[in-house]
Amino acid sequence: MIGVEGLPLVQPGDDVGEVIAISITKNGMTLEDWDIVVVSQKIVSKAEGRLVNLGQLRPSKRAEELAKLTNKDARLVEYVLKESKRVLGIAEQALVVETYAGLVCLNAGIDKSNVSGKDTYSLLPTDPDGSAREIRSKLRELTGKNVGVIICDTYSRPFRNGIVDFAIGLAGVRPFKDYRGTCDLFGNQLKFKLVATADEIAAAAELVMGQGTEAIPVAIIKGLASVELDNDIKSTELIMPTSRDLYRGSIR
Amino acid sequence: MIGVEGLPLVQPGDDVGEVIAISITKNGMTLEDWDIVVVSQKIVSKAEGRLVNLGQLRPSKRAEELAKLTNKDARLVEYVLKESKRVLGIAEQALVVETYAGLVCLNAGIDKSNVSGKDTYSLLPTDPDGSAREIRSKLRELTGKNVGVIICDTYSRPFRNGIVDFAIGLAGVRPFKDYRGTCDLFGNQLKFKLVATADEIAAAAELVMGQGTEAIPVAIIKGLASVELDNDIKSTELIMPTSRDLYRGSIR
Repeated sequence: MIGVEGLPLVQPGDDVGEVIAISITKNGMTLEDWDIVVVSQKIVSKAEGRLVNLGQLRPSKRAEELAKLTNKDARLVEYVLKESKRVLGIAEQALVVETYAGLVCLNAGIDKSNVSGKDTYSLLPTDPDGSAREIRSKLRELTGKNVGVIICDTYSRPFRNGIVDFAIGLAGVRPFKDYRGTCDLFGNQLKFKLVATADEIAAAAELVMGQGTEAIPVAIIKGLASVELDNDIKSTELIMPTSRDLYRGSIR
Repeated sequence: MIGVEGLPLVQPGDDVGEVIAISITKNGMTLEDWDIVVVSQKIVSKAEGRLVNLGQLRPSKRAEELAKLTNKDARLVEYVLKESKRVLGIAEQALVVETYAGLVCLNAGIDKSNVSGKDTYSLLPTDPDGSAREIRSKLRELTGKNVGVIICDTYSRPFRNGIVDFAIGLAGVRPFKDYRGTCDLFGNQLKFKLVATADEIAAAAELVMGQGTEAIPVAIIKGLASVELDNDIKSTELIMPTSRDLYRGSIR
């Protein structure tokens, strides 16, 4: 795992794949086939202009009501509502929502950290898998290498204290390693072991990337034999359908 | 991240720290101060004799009722109940429970994989932080190095498909990296960023350890500048108290 340092501050309109390729070369690093390039959601959102300034917005009545309950800026709540399919819960400073992509998270992933400008916030990319595919194909064009790309972001979780990184966009790298049907050390058949390796890679990358204060928005993971590259990838496979989620309904 | 290969099959009574130190030397590897040694729960449970054979048990009436609802062996359900403070939910082949340690998981972490013997299952260690401390102090005794130890296990999660590793026991290594109160790239103060680095390290280690079929129950993480060693560590800090869990009550 290597953090890519020295990236320039990404601006709307920048090509993230190109910025990464240039920084890798500048750092004296090289990409190899099967490397996995993990990219922070924040620079993808910035490059894609997924930034909003609250100043321009007049909040709806519902946003004003929820703003009172959460002690949040009603204009920010309005943006959370725009990005969300459903509001699942209300807490101090937080709305638990399900985004249109199906992600259950706080405040629809709308975030102020590492975004310049008073009252300017970043939204999640509209199509993170598409963003990942663009970065992957640009890296292939500029380096000739066949790599996987994971777009990661930091989230809170039920039951566990502290935040960790998940994969929110994928290109070329499978979300899972599937042990189901294989046998363990003693010949017992494994029935349930579908490992979310893409989430584990995102979590691993956070350890070298940090939270922006370190200015390392990209990490390269080399030598991961457990990972299989594939072309037809959807990160939404990492989202558990409500009907199959054993925890839903049981966590009060 | 390096997987430690060639460990002997761990038996009840074995000293896990000693087994690890011997295997590291045999592999031509060396430990250094600040390395983090990640150890699979399974070998800790085996060494501590946390194995049960269902044959000896007569299930309670409640276990029999829950066995019918989950299609599980009533004797296994009896053990799940013995290890659990509360049953939170019921599903096909699974009980969602809160263990006495506070972990919310399926079937109290009782598991058949990589355990030999028909009807023999492993339970979680009784005191995983104590187990981690013993491994750490044995590694210090045998190698002279001051390392952190994380005991990890693989769990399912609400909302996300697939399983990932968490930290269930810690010694010497802090559970979190705390950014709260620090400033981001543009001087915005970070308010909520408490990163569960121990969980991220456990997830990272799974990528080289796999699920037992690879026979790599230990991984060493080197060069993690973001990690701070500390003596007074409790892995239960990684468990979110119900009253502060924004997701509880909102996930139906």
